[in-house]
Amino acid sequence: MSKTMKAMVYHGANDIRFEERPRPEILQPTDAVIRLTKTTICGTDLGIWKGKNPEIQDTAVAKTGLFDGRILGHEGIGIVEEVGSAVKNFKKGDKVIISCVSRCGTCENCQKQLYAHCQNEGGWIMGYMIDGTHAEYVRTPFADTSLYLLPEGLNEEVAVFLSDVLPTSHEIGVQYGNVKPGDTIAIVGTGPIGMGCLLTAQFYSPAQIIAVDMDDNRLAMAKELGATHTINSAKEDAVQRILEITGGRGVDCAMEAVGVEATWDICQNVVKEGGHIANVGVHGKSVNFELNKLWIKNLTITTGLVNTNTTGMLLKTCCSGKLPLEKLATHHFKFSEFEKAYDVFKHASDENAMKVMINYE
Amino acid sequence: MSKTMKAMVYHGANDIRFEERPRPEILQPTDAVIRLTKTTICGTDLGIWKGKNPEIQDTAVAKTGLFDGRILGHEGIGIVEEVGSAVKNFKKGDKVIISCVSRCGTCENCQKQLYAHCQNEGGWIMGYMIDGTHAEYVRTPFADTSLYLLPEGLNEEVAVFLSDVLPTSHEIGVQYGNVKPGDTIAIVGTGPIGMGCLLTAQFYSPAQIIAVDMDDNRLAMAKELGATHTINSAKEDAVQRILEITGGRGVDCAMEAVGVEATWDICQNVVKEGGHIANVGVHGKSVNFELNKLWIKNLTITTGLVNTNTTGMLLKTCCSGKLPLEKLATHHFKFSEFEKAYDVFKHASDENAMKVMINYE
Amino acid sequence: MSKTMKAMVYHGANDIRFEERPRPEILQPTDAVIRLTKTTICGTDLGIWKGKNPEIQDTAVAKTGLFDGRILGHEGIGIVEEVGSAVKNFKKGDKVIISCVSRCGTCENCQKQLYAHCQNEGGWIMGYMIDGTHAEYVRTPFADTSLYLLPEGLNEEVAVFLSDVLPTSHEIGVQYGNVKPGDTIAIVGTGPIGMGCLLTAQFYSPAQIIAVDMDDNRLAMAKELGATHTINSAKEDAVQRILEITGGRGVDCAMEAVGVEATWDICQNVVKEGGHIANVGVHGKSVNFELNKLWIKNLTITTGLVNTNTTGMLLKTCCSGKLPLEKLATHHFKFSEFEKAYDVFKHASDENAMKVMINYE
Amino acid sequence: MSKTMKAMVYHGANDIRFEERPRPEILQPTDAVIRLTKTTICGTDLGIWKGKNPEIQDTAVAKTGLFDGRILGHEGIGIVEEVGSAVKNFKKGDKVIISCVSRCGTCENCQKQLYAHCQNEGGWIMGYMIDGTHAEYVRTPFADTSLYLLPEGLNEEVAVFLSDVLPTSHEIGVQYGNVKPGDTIAIVGTGPIGMGCLLTAQFYSPAQIIAVDMDDNRLAMAKELGATHTINSAKEDAVQRILEITGGRGVDCAMEAVGVEATWDICQNVVKEGGHIANVGVHGKSVNFELNKLWIKNLTITTGLVNTNTTGMLLKTCCSGKLPLEKLATHHFKFSEFEKAYDVFKHASDENAMKVMINYE
Repeated sequence: MSKTMKAMVYHGANDIRFEERPRPEILQPTDAVIRLTKTTICGTDLGIWKGKNPEIQDTAVAKTGLFDGRILGHEGIGIVEEVGSAVKNFKKGDKVIISCVSRCGTCENCQKQLYAHCQNEGGWIMGYMIDGTHAEYVRTPFADTSLYLLPEGLNEEVAVFLSDVLPTSHEIGVQYGNVKPGDTIAIVGTGPIGMGCLLTAQFYSPAQIIAVDMDDNRLAMAKELGATHTINSAKEDAVQRILEITGGRGVDCAMEAVGVEATWDICQNVVKEGGHIANVGVHGKSVNFELNKLWIKNLTITTGLVNTNTTGMLLKTCCSGKLPLEKLATHHFKFSEFEKAYDVFKHASDENAMKVMINYE
Repeated sequence: MSKTMKAMVYHGANDIRFEERPRPEILQPTDAVIRLTKTTICGTDLGIWKGKNPEIQDTAVAKTGLFDGRILGHEGIGIVEEVGSAVKNFKKGDKVIISCVSRCGTCENCQKQLYAHCQNEGGWIMGYMIDGTHAEYVRTPFADTSLYLLPEGLNEEVAVFLSDVLPTSHEIGVQYGNVKPGDTIAIVGTGPIGMGCLLTAQFYSPAQIIAVDMDDNRLAMAKELGATHTINSAKEDAVQRILEITGGRGVDCAMEAVGVEATWDICQNVVKEGGHIANVGVHGKSVNFELNKLWIKNLTITTGLVNTNTTGMLLKTCCSGKLPLEKLATHHFKFSEFEKAYDVFKHASDENAMKVMINYE
Repeated sequence: MSKTMKAMVYHGANDIRFEERPRPEILQPTDAVIRLTKTTICGTDLGIWKGKNPEIQDTAVAKTGLFDGRILGHEGIGIVEEVGSAVKNFKKGDKVIISCVSRCGTCENCQKQLYAHCQNEGGWIMGYMIDGTHAEYVRTPFADTSLYLLPEGLNEEVAVFLSDVLPTSHEIGVQYGNVKPGDTIAIVGTGPIGMGCLLTAQFYSPAQIIAVDMDDNRLAMAKELGATHTINSAKEDAVQRILEITGGRGVDCAMEAVGVEATWDICQNVVKEGGHIANVGVHGKSVNFELNKLWIKNLTITTGLVNTNTTGMLLKTCCSGKLPLEKLATHHFKFSEFEKAYDVFKHASDENAMKVMINYE
Repeated sequence: MSKTMKAMVYHGANDIRFEERPRPEILQPTDAVIRLTKTTICGTDLGIWKGKNPEIQDTAVAKTGLFDGRILGHEGIGIVEEVGSAVKNFKKGDKVIISCVSRCGTCENCQKQLYAHCQNEGGWIMGYMIDGTHAEYVRTPFADTSLYLLPEGLNEEVAVFLSDVLPTSHEIGVQYGNVKPGDTIAIVGTGPIGMGCLLTAQFYSPAQIIAVDMDDNRLAMAKELGATHTINSAKEDAVQRILEITGGRGVDCAMEAVGVEATWDICQNVVKEGGHIANVGVHGKSVNFELNKLWIKNLTITTGLVNTNTTGMLLKTCCSGKLPLEKLATHHFKFSEFEKAYDVFKHASDENAMKVMINYE
């Protein structure tokens, strides 16, 4: 069997290459090696490629000594090719979902279910501290807790979204945002994560969902996926419109799903007293926080990286299949077209793209 | 009986006067009139006097048409003088604690226990939207839910702290900050509210309490009241010291108890992943929020005005008497010395004052 | 205007009569008098009529001196006819939903949102401690907190279910039972309350809902309303079937919605470790609790009378209208046919009846 | 080095022997072998010895094929002698606390922090499914998550109580019982677990703690450790006394810390509406549950085996040292006197014994 494989390798801002690389091997007894069958590209991968998140590169270099040469990607499903000696729950041939977060399960943070901040070389590491899933094979550390058996009957594209987009949206947007039946919520930004928030929020039956974006195509899709109101913030004053829709009261929860000051600012101006701002976006700059107006409002503001502690729950919910999660996959590519997939995702708005799906045939 | 009384009346920045005013009367069937026996001065009263919170004056004028002429104060204990026809739980002669927050109990916010934001002329209104407690008598709206029977045997000075300082510290600092047994917490600012946080935090048995201030006298008092570590941030780099104390990990909860950017900034730099920042301070300006560093840290940041929903719980806890709450009252004045009390509190640091207690005879 | 009205009056077991009675008047400044437009009959009314709950009669006699002569009923919608002087939120002519639970809002229990146990003559009192809604008019105490404005566009039959059946099912079944996305739940008993549990559980997206009853018609309706599995416990061993369906694991939550030992017993034998038993049924006898088997299972078992603290939330959710709540109303009667309505509801199984709706012309 | 060791071995009811046994060895890469330095005897060990819990023996035989020959004990501290190849957090020579519950960290239950019900040969297994700590050496599975580094300066006898008695009391009694500042609680049974509840409850500052037992010596000790009221239920009607103490209201939380119907019965008769019954006792028989009286009371009743998910938190709290936890150790023995220790613990009441401490040299 070939010792090499094809992979999308990062070589600095705006320079990723489809290269031949050695196939990964088991390094720790808790590792598994997975042969990928489907993967997708995350906004974070795109941000790395475009050089927008120097902090990510800096952290990777500080912790691992390099970032040039890293295989990107932290999402996907595949077939277990090999497991380490300590892996109990999986065996060669199992069809699995790869979680974007790995966890040792034993450190102080893992014992608090704060897996995003595993202190033993877990957390988000694939495509960041170690090579990722934009390849034919990937090594996943702590396989027993970082993989999920792919159940029969689950749509495989929905399964790919269980790697990252659905747990991130659900945990950092919907759960941290405390969405409850009857709530009015605003989702500011309807890219893949905002759409994930829109879909997983519906697990808790909010009465009104206001979607805000500057792209009418995305807003149309948001409407189709369950938004009760849409606002194009390029054409209308989003704050004023949200206050009108809510009779001047504001929303119970505002989710920031972009990562820039303008969208943060909408959120801090539309949440009502006692409400929640759930920041899901990855920010490159600090923001202005109007504590002079907000100190009195009994707000809860949250931030965070996904813990994937609800992946199992979401998997069961996805299997019961009431929400059109599969609609997030708007574009499909062969593995050999990976560069094209990156390019389409880079121009998502022009291409009317949401999530791009890469199939290894 | 005299139709008038003495009161401390606000007439604009730096202008309060000890004046003769009409005694308040029952206006609504749910009102009570209380003859005060003890009161105290809040940092918010001081801020109003010093003209530091124009927003408070503006809001009062916007909602009520005036602020010049307002009797200040929202804390105190006293004797029920008269009750409206709909008051069920209190009668003339009852000794009561006056809560700083009034609540109709029927609006949407009250039904969520968000009493601070009562939508029917409740919330914080005494000494703000209506005349307050810095007088011989005060009218308290919604008496049934805004008064508490003063139990036999409870230290009366501790009872005064149940009007505002203890519930504010407990709810907005300790409960919103999610203090748990074994936690390491930082309290940034050890004025009366910071001290209240320090005392009520101990109801939940944190393992380490780090107090930060620029006043060595206050830090010495913090140590006496339960702080395990103190830091004078005028002499040391508070962020660096807190990280040293915590082995580089940071704290589970940082409480901002001042209301300026410098103390907020300490808080956002010392809280560990998964931790809490509880903002208790009243801010006059917006602050810089380092979302570029904090988006990934799974933080919870809270703000708020006290709901007084734990006043009853605190009252029971105070009666069991394990904490030296009475030590907060450092200076004592007669009612006739009210101006002097304001003056001492204004120069609290020079006077080594924490809370000033005014006794009516 | 006539001083009298028609009403269904209880005169002892199996003896209710459609009688002429004085119209109710305002007694307290917080009262309202409502002219009913729709009402329904609760299983509890039926139990009283059939003499099955001597404890209810005994409690009423102990607290109020009588039960013979009581007008039954605690559900309905209507038009405000008159309000007391202290009522702020409602006025003559308002269309309202009458809550089955009244609350003073000021006692210790109300301050904990434990409105079911209001200590000032609130809680469940209509049709129990005071005259109820099975009449042309009803006096509702504490109108400000016991009525809800009926929103334009809400199906009026669904509105009637907001008096009791939906909040009871939601709070005591679904919330106490901690139903979460992805859960497997069992609902034991599919009368109106069990159906309410089945419907309101879906606000939280459980993956599997197993309905258990002995009536195939009800099970067919459960399937139509969202059950994923049904079991006729008269024909099959319900415990064994539930264990089969769940791969031997048991359910996350079992709701007891009948009030007899046999259904309790199913619940305690099918809940998995760490799971919940939510007892919603009204029991006439004690039950056997297998602590010898269950001490080790980390179970949470709850009981309770509805607090109606989620009525507002449910109202918003019902307005967004995704669940077929109106299907609960299977039979319709004119007010003049009230005796026939009782008779049909008494023979609900033979009549294939779920909730009977009484329309006042 | 000797291949054998001394151990207390169970050979059937009333037959344990101090025997020579092979020293345990690493079987799995996640194991550690610990040389014990202190251990203690649990009421469960005693129950096994006395043949009181046939269910425990039956379960052990069903799962492992034997119970005759099992080394008892699941508590203790010691020195790591050897670790398996996959153990990351501990090394030879580390001083450690041995947790009574082992956890794989990867199964569905472990991922919910329900470690007591680990599905991969974890949970409570030492002295039950595998050999325990009443020996010179013990093998602990899943060492990374089942051991805790013993911090410098922590009293070593308190450390022993972190194996089981303190986490069990804290999690199953105090946390499941939802003890809050200001609460009134009843602890029914003041053996070691009841005393642990009494001590750890104080981490949350209840206002009143009522201890109930039939042994005046234990009640005197309860008073010394923080009880505000004591009741000898052999001499007084405990239910009536608790109602008197609470002004007829009952308690917020009743903890059952014995495991017989009489103590359960006290609990179900003294808890007020909205309150909690936390069952901590190990029951050999089912009990009568008065749902006819309690269906209406909005109670929460919990059961369970310790998850040890708060051991880390408790460890930090114990280090801060405000409670006299060390007083639980009333009797001390050398390892060679193990049989005598069992005998004294068997006659704990006559011997005025609480916990017996066994020191290895």
